[in-house]
Amino acid sequence: MQSAEARILDRRSPIDALHAMLAPEMAAVDRLVHERIGSAVPLIPDLARHLVDAGGKRLRPLLTLAAARLNAYRGTAHIRLAAAVEFIHTATLLHDDVVDVSTLRRGKIAANVVWGNKSSVLVGDYLFSRSFQLMVEAGDISVLSVLAQASAVIAEGEVLQLRTTHNLATTRDEYLRVISAKTAALFAAAAKSGAMIASAPAETIEALRAYGHHLGIVFQLIDDALDYSGRQAQMGKSIGDDFREAKVTLPVIVAHERANETGREFWRRTIEDGAQHEGDLKRAIAYVDESGAIEETQALARFHMDAAMTALDRLPPHQLRKTLQDVAEFCVSRCY
Amino acid sequence: MQSAEARILDRRSPIDALHAMLAPEMAAVDRLVHERIGSAVPLIPDLARHLVDAGGKRLRPLLTLAAARLNAYRGTAHIRLAAAVEFIHTATLLHDDVVDVSTLRRGKIAANVVWGNKSSVLVGDYLFSRSFQLMVEAGDISVLSVLAQASAVIAEGEVLQLRTTHNLATTRDEYLRVISAKTAALFAAAAKSGAMIASAPAETIEALRAYGHHLGIVFQLIDDALDYSGRQAQMGKSIGDDFREAKVTLPVIVAHERANETGREFWRRTIEDGAQHEGDLKRAIAYVDESGAIEETQALARFHMDAAMTALDRLPPHQLRKTLQDVAEFCVSRCY
Repeated sequence: MQSAEARILDRRSPIDALHAMLAPEMAAVDRLVHERIGSAVPLIPDLARHLVDAGGKRLRPLLTLAAARLNAYRGTAHIRLAAAVEFIHTATLLHDDVVDVSTLRRGKIAANVVWGNKSSVLVGDYLFSRSFQLMVEAGDISVLSVLAQASAVIAEGEVLQLRTTHNLATTRDEYLRVISAKTAALFAAAAKSGAMIASAPAETIEALRAYGHHLGIVFQLIDDALDYSGRQAQMGKSIGDDFREAKVTLPVIVAHERANETGREFWRRTIEDGAQHEGDLKRAIAYVDESGAIEETQALARFHMDAAMTALDRLPPHQLRKTLQDVAEFCVSRCY
Repeated sequence: MQSAEARILDRRSPIDALHAMLAPEMAAVDRLVHERIGSAVPLIPDLARHLVDAGGKRLRPLLTLAAARLNAYRGTAHIRLAAAVEFIHTATLLHDDVVDVSTLRRGKIAANVVWGNKSSVLVGDYLFSRSFQLMVEAGDISVLSVLAQASAVIAEGEVLQLRTTHNLATTRDEYLRVISAKTAALFAAAAKSGAMIASAPAETIEALRAYGHHLGIVFQLIDDALDYSGRQAQMGKSIGDDFREAKVTLPVIVAHERANETGREFWRRTIEDGAQHEGDLKRAIAYVDESGAIEETQALARFHMDAAMTALDRLPPHQLRKTLQDVAEFCVSRCY
């Protein structure tokens, strides 16, 4: 039995393995998400379903479920919390689409292009409210406090990101503050809330929070590196979104810092002035590549991977613990 | 003393009287709002303060405070709830500015014009999160549930309004659903939550909810009528926002319904097609005026004013009860 399961896991990514181990609970989360997307106002489920069904790895709700299961939770409130976490994430994506004038999201046409900015803002608000209703139903006010705090931090992170956009003076520290707030805060809160609802001991809650935080940092670092990946482009994956939106991510910070005068001029024009022409993305990828920025980003990701794995070492041995550690490792090599 | 107070109240509107009666608590709400607007990210307080300091009558938090005071509440959680209510309202305004491409809000340049749509969406999200944190601090999960539900209903109402925009087939029922959701739901929840936190009996909670609901309907009906008021225009007040945004409010529904073929053609062009030229607002006001739409809107407002006042008749006599009834009456004659 154990070895059959092990064989199955071998053929899959650790994220797939996590899905398989939590399949019944994830199915319940999916049902709840689809139920709560419902509204007497037809546009709302249409728009929300467009995004929810596009999928993604559902890594955040998986963290909530895994943290609850790791602590032998027997109730059903973790399903509501996981759905709430997914709703916060989906609302953020909808508002991101408005914000960044992006046209592709998860490989589908962005909701704002199909339905207009207005709808994306309002349906995002709706999902955000729904997420709070789910938290209320989960019935634990300290968990609610953690997720409400995370929501505020995410919004702060997104605002901070606006200030770093077009701004080549952005420091590594500022960049880390942005990704810590806009991405890692929800990963951390997702894992922490699963442990809290299971009444785990304080040090276990802190271990899972730390794991989520570091995993979120890894996830975003690799995401930012992949956006300048020539290999991704060869595989037909969409890249260059950050470049087009003039986001100042770690690859840009490093490449700009190490550039000669021609290179600096290039980054000033394309990022600071936002004046981009055909062929610029290719040049940007080349500059990033030769600067060693990808290696520096990966090295930092490995540092946070280690921190994520070490955080879990404090927990008792468990197949789920091992899988979560594998997920952290996998995210460095390739995250989605 | 009583007569001195009565004389003071005479010179003021009932909303001013309500402010005077709840002055220490409103001062505490204001302090809390300004404290919680704070963020290490500088743009956030700048943008939020722009809107919060523009003022408005703060009618919604006043309802929460009044409902708590009416029920002899002795704690401090109502301050947090009132601030949460004001934050929900402010977040809605910020997202409305994005949504409707409006350029004026409370007589000041709309935040999105100064700071960009991106910032308005994200700072709205931040304030929305902050409102939930305040509710968590208030510590009553059933009150939290009421306000989370109201937030979802508001978003639904705004989406529904998108569907009625440019749509002359909008019925009176659909219009009432929109204003009930986008405006009256928060008035109702604001009053209800104040009664709940004070552990008022169920029938008192229901009476205050009903009062808030009907007052919200009155408020929005009169707001929508004033947007076509030639008198307002003469007084130098901004009008015509709804017309420019092609919102189908009750004045438009009635005026269109009673128009001759030339009139219908006018509404089709300006509202359905959104093709508006100079002089059209003046024509719209004339059509609305001669159709008797303002009288019908005011009559409906008086109906809801009566319902609001009757709801409060169930409560024991109290100076605040009287003032709330005066507010409902005042809102029909002139609401801001």
